[in-house]
Amino acid sequence: MLCWSISAIKLSCHSYPSHAIPSRAMPCSLAGGKRDTDLILPINSSLSVTLHQDQLKTTTTAAASRDFTEDRLWLNGKEADVGHPRVQACLREVRRLARKRRGGGEDAAALSLSYKIHIASENNFPTAAGLASSAAGYACLVSALARLYGLEEELSEVARRGSGSACRSMFGGFVQWQRGERPDGTDSLALQVAPETHWPELRVLVLVVSGEKKPVGSTAGMQTSVETSPLLKHRAEVVVPERLAQMMQHIRDRDFEGFGQLAMRDSNQFHATCLDTFPPIFYLTDVSRHIIALAHRYNAHHGHTKVAYSFDAGPNAVIFALTDTVAEFVEVVRRSFPPATNGDQFVRGMPVGSAVLPPELVAAVLTEPVPGAVQYILHTKPGPGPQLVDDPSQHLLGPDGLPRSRA
Amino acid sequence: MLCWSISAIKLSCHSYPSHAIPSRAMPCSLAGGKRDTDLILPINSSLSVTLHQDQLKTTTTAAASRDFTEDRLWLNGKEADVGHPRVQACLREVRRLARKRRGGGEDAAALSLSYKIHIASENNFPTAAGLASSAAGYACLVSALARLYGLEEELSEVARRGSGSACRSMFGGFVQWQRGERPDGTDSLALQVAPETHWPELRVLVLVVSGEKKPVGSTAGMQTSVETSPLLKHRAEVVVPERLAQMMQHIRDRDFEGFGQLAMRDSNQFHATCLDTFPPIFYLTDVSRHIIALAHRYNAHHGHTKVAYSFDAGPNAVIFALTDTVAEFVEVVRRSFPPATNGDQFVRGMPVGSAVLPPELVAAVLTEPVPGAVQYILHTKPGPGPQLVDDPSQHLLGPDGLPRSRA
Repeated sequence: MLCWSISAIKLSCHSYPSHAIPSRAMPCSLAGGKRDTDLILPINSSLSVTLHQDQLKTTTTAAASRDFTEDRLWLNGKEADVGHPRVQACLREVRRLARKRRGGGEDAAALSLSYKIHIASENNFPTAAGLASSAAGYACLVSALARLYGLEEELSEVARRGSGSACRSMFGGFVQWQRGERPDGTDSLALQVAPETHWPELRVLVLVVSGEKKPVGSTAGMQTSVETSPLLKHRAEVVVPERLAQMMQHIRDRDFEGFGQLAMRDSNQFHATCLDTFPPIFYLTDVSRHIIALAHRYNAHHGHTKVAYSFDAGPNAVIFALTDTVAEFVEVVRRSFPPATNGDQFVRGMPVGSAVLPPELVAAVLTEPVPGAVQYILHTKPGPGPQLVDDPSQHLLGPDGLPRSRA
Repeated sequence: MLCWSISAIKLSCHSYPSHAIPSRAMPCSLAGGKRDTDLILPINSSLSVTLHQDQLKTTTTAAASRDFTEDRLWLNGKEADVGHPRVQACLREVRRLARKRRGGGEDAAALSLSYKIHIASENNFPTAAGLASSAAGYACLVSALARLYGLEEELSEVARRGSGSACRSMFGGFVQWQRGERPDGTDSLALQVAPETHWPELRVLVLVVSGEKKPVGSTAGMQTSVETSPLLKHRAEVVVPERLAQMMQHIRDRDFEGFGQLAMRDSNQFHATCLDTFPPIFYLTDVSRHIIALAHRYNAHHGHTKVAYSFDAGPNAVIFALTDTVAEFVEVVRRSFPPATNGDQFVRGMPVGSAVLPPELVAAVLTEPVPGAVQYILHTKPGPGPQLVDDPSQHLLGPDGLPRSRA
């Protein structure tokens, strides 16, 4: 039995059009060119930030053995359907590449392609709450399978077959997913715009407002949006291409004002196209709206963009800020949404210093508090792409090829 | 002293692009033609339904006297600033038309144009809660002033100077506000598409979810939208003209399926452009979203469009339905949002019959109830334009020209 564990990025966290509808898996039938649903081709290019695995991560272990009688899959400890078309697409593509690499002849030293495989995957964060769990999951899956079969090529195109945005999670730092032009999707790939070390002062605060499953899966929602929203078509064809070029420049310049303004505007526009979908899709709740208003009051008080919000397919806010703003804004959030029960675990992830709010800030920014509306804050930063897990004790599958029982 | 009272329409209730941003007062500076802010010219044409005065109304009394020493204004019993630019614009325009009509010579029998005037206006519904209070108010003001000065011409252009959508409230039934082309706005007028008697089965349910003042006035909000929303420009130039033509046809055909679908899609798109505004504007709350989801489940259960929602610049829902649907849907709303205290006043306006919900409807449509989320339901229908109040006891100003003390 060969066994590999990869602890991969969670949250390909979407500095920008990553929140754009088209940045996710998109079966495209817009006027001007139907693209294939199975291939998951986007209607425009997009950008994202990969978050650090120290805070949010998916861990996936893949194993192959002549003793396995069938392919099997466990998600967060429960057996799941390995026949899921997207899992199958990833498996098929990786095996096809492995077969191609070996030139048809069976290499005795290499893992037999006929062996069945076992896969186990776990997130350390709530799934399906708009925290890009499927992006991290499929990036991790493809990376683990690739190591298992000894592949060394760039595999973002394969990860895309699992979940569109997973292709961006194959790289660290700031990543572009190129729309591509070819009908077969072979040029719809991820490219690193800048590594995770490019902007050392950039920090990310995830304000988790709900661990519930979102009512509409992001892929199903996008399909409906493409079919019914007249505004989405305009956004994809006209607005996003301009903004994408601006955003790349802001990132290269480490221009937080430009970066933050555009991140907020584009998050809002993505959610606008969700509302223009029929029936409409709402990911933002009253709590999300409170957070948005708070960010605008905070920036207005300081006279420039100190924090920028961005929301994916769920109510949780992703806040971008520079290191010198984190402690003060976390205190603003704590005062605005006083923690209900888990006061000591309200701030998680990287350490946050303490801050005393000046009275004029309190007067200008704080309003009636909404207790318990924010469950917790996760403090993190841009991070690398999928990493191999060196420590065998962290593998999710035991020597028998079955999930280890968790203590 | 001459005194006229006009009890005018409340709620120019917006079957359709009335909810469109451009259907309201719009200082337009879109690419392709800046239009004058003072003139309140829209960036596209729009349609609305005027609601019946038996349920929602504004009453305005205007009086002129040689004994008055200054122009004065009372709103809902409190003295207000008569110097408000929009009130002044209406006064100035009406006086200019009166002067023009008299050909410069002073007619002894006519009211002297030099007399100061007193105006009192009251709504029987909460102001500034997205129920088109300013539309009804300015339509009523202009109608009362016109009667006072003996004007007989069409005055929607003058009402537009008070509040853009007020021009539509100058007519009953289904009304179009033509965008117009001329820089001076003289062709930006209201036209009746069909009278209030055209579609006798059409009913309107206003679900009042909040009497609070909305956080952003609709005019200020629209100004920001025009300046910052890329999607609004596309909506105004491309989407609305097509939809307007379709909507007029649906109204002419009394096609509820087409009418309802388009009303919902267009309401959603208006709110999408609010979200695309920067900073974003949110009129819909979690309760609004509950109502929207409820309407979609109800229609899905019946297999066609039985109810259609539309939201203006506030969280209150306007529901369109035909007479045969009202009782059942009101019961669905009552079960979904059980009244907190005013159970006996939960349904107001026109009588609503009782209905028993079939078990399969309950199972398919109802979810966890949200007690108290809807304050009350107002049942009404399309109604006429401004009406003269015949009963002198209903005048708001007493013989001394001051507001009557209310018992």
